[in-house]
Amino acid sequence: MNIPLTPPQPAEAVDAASRRYREPVPLAGWNPVLASLLDHRSVRAYRPDPLAPGTVETLVAAASSAPTSSNIQAWSVVAVTDPDRRDRLAEIAGGQEHIRQAPLILVWIADLARAEAVADTAGVTLQGLDYTETFLLAAIDAALAAQNALIAAESLGLGTVYIGALRNDPKAVAELLNLPRRAAAVFGLVVGHPDRKVETAVKPRLPQQAVLHHETYSTAPLAEAIARHDRATEAFRAEQSLPPQSWSALLVDRLRDVAALKGRHKLRQTLERLGFILG
Amino acid sequence: MNIPLTPPQPAEAVDAASRRYREPVPLAGWNPVLASLLDHRSVRAYRPDPLAPGTVETLVAAASSAPTSSNIQAWSVVAVTDPDRRDRLAEIAGGQEHIRQAPLILVWIADLARAEAVADTAGVTLQGLDYTETFLLAAIDAALAAQNALIAAESLGLGTVYIGALRNDPKAVAELLNLPRRAAAVFGLVVGHPDRKVETAVKPRLPQQAVLHHETYSTAPLAEAIARHDRATEAFRAEQSLPPQSWSALLVDRLRDVAALKGRHKLRQTLERLGFILG
Repeated sequence: MNIPLTPPQPAEAVDAASRRYREPVPLAGWNPVLASLLDHRSVRAYRPDPLAPGTVETLVAAASSAPTSSNIQAWSVVAVTDPDRRDRLAEIAGGQEHIRQAPLILVWIADLARAEAVADTAGVTLQGLDYTETFLLAAIDAALAAQNALIAAESLGLGTVYIGALRNDPKAVAELLNLPRRAAAVFGLVVGHPDRKVETAVKPRLPQQAVLHHETYSTAPLAEAIARHDRATEAFRAEQSLPPQSWSALLVDRLRDVAALKGRHKLRQTLERLGFILG
Repeated sequence: MNIPLTPPQPAEAVDAASRRYREPVPLAGWNPVLASLLDHRSVRAYRPDPLAPGTVETLVAAASSAPTSSNIQAWSVVAVTDPDRRDRLAEIAGGQEHIRQAPLILVWIADLARAEAVADTAGVTLQGLDYTETFLLAAIDAALAAQNALIAAESLGLGTVYIGALRNDPKAVAELLNLPRRAAAVFGLVVGHPDRKVETAVKPRLPQQAVLHHETYSTAPLAEAIARHDRATEAFRAEQSLPPQSWSALLVDRLRDVAALKGRHKLRQTLERLGFILG
């Protein structure tokens, strides 16, 4: 299955890397897994058709197979298909229509409630829960599990898109999904059949020189790499008939002020209200 | 490439799900990607052989292909191969020998320094950086990227293991890797050729009833599902000649008190010293 690469590389590998970076990056191998990973694109237009039976269980089997810190498994997932509940999640996320279109949204939970339940049964108190570290561990566990589910969904020909905007109001999500104390949604993952009438595209990313450091962190190549990515982003947006904007300008817009965070500046207080102690 | 499944399922799919859960879970499809995901196992014994040229770039191409919140790309990775530097990372991680054995550790960075550099160039201040949300976004971006790299590595026949214990002392890691302000290691990923003389095994995970909720969160099936997982964990540990212990007991040990966190109870203060403002 795995093809170690010596030059010349197969056209498929060359194309996949060039689509991602808008510049050549020679790869060390090529196989169906790498092909699937490099071809990722977010899907924001769906057909309403339901998913095949067993789809959720298959995605969760992939999620369960992800690594988890010390085998704590500090994540859960709520599979939401009910149209009214999806409508409410779409509202919380600022009106993202694809949450209403697709038949499923998986809501990924940083879950320390299960650990607390285990401790209650054992008659002990887990002092280790009451730290920023332990919330972060749970959020990372949830992210690793979710990413495996995303890759599994794409391998089945399904479309996906993460919904970070559930963090605009995690308290509303917790109420809607009846989450226990010490459990919070970190993001959603919409899953459905892509509407093939709406084209999707591989989005360009920062050149490797901007994200990959050897031995120690170096800022030397940063300005030039960002300038290249600004041009690549502008070219991509022109192809997609989007308003012209560089990556640098998009980044500044997204983080410029508190208003741009759309409620997320209150995340720490909200997590504390949901029972996390961020010591 | 993708095989939609109708009963009876191929033996490979049945076996993969049963190895992961120690009980049957019918899958909705089967393909090389699902096979790779479900077969994940952590590797803690390596041969010292170097990696093929281009391996790091291939893993980073997979990482770059992961979704990133609002395309902010708030992560970086430092590829460490130098033996002295790996030795120091092994020390920070409490003496994990596999960091010394394997030829590479990728250190994944929650990176808001690059965003700040972009803003400096534009002559603006990003008020949005100064919140817990934005650190969390960066940590999640790093986790999604790293998980893609892990899957890519496994597809190339390489072994991997995450090193969460870099969070025992992120300040020491920052000094060792010369990280700028607003950049912190969230975990490492050891990559190398597995020592085939040391067997690895698929670790059992909580039954789906304990982690998958439909429409809303339910604690009803939890006690029974955890009891099954305790038995599965005990069976696994007996097979691996590990001291007998249930999953519940392992979990309690890991989070019982501050000492069990091995320095990580100071994470919030450390992140603040590294330049993150966790408003």
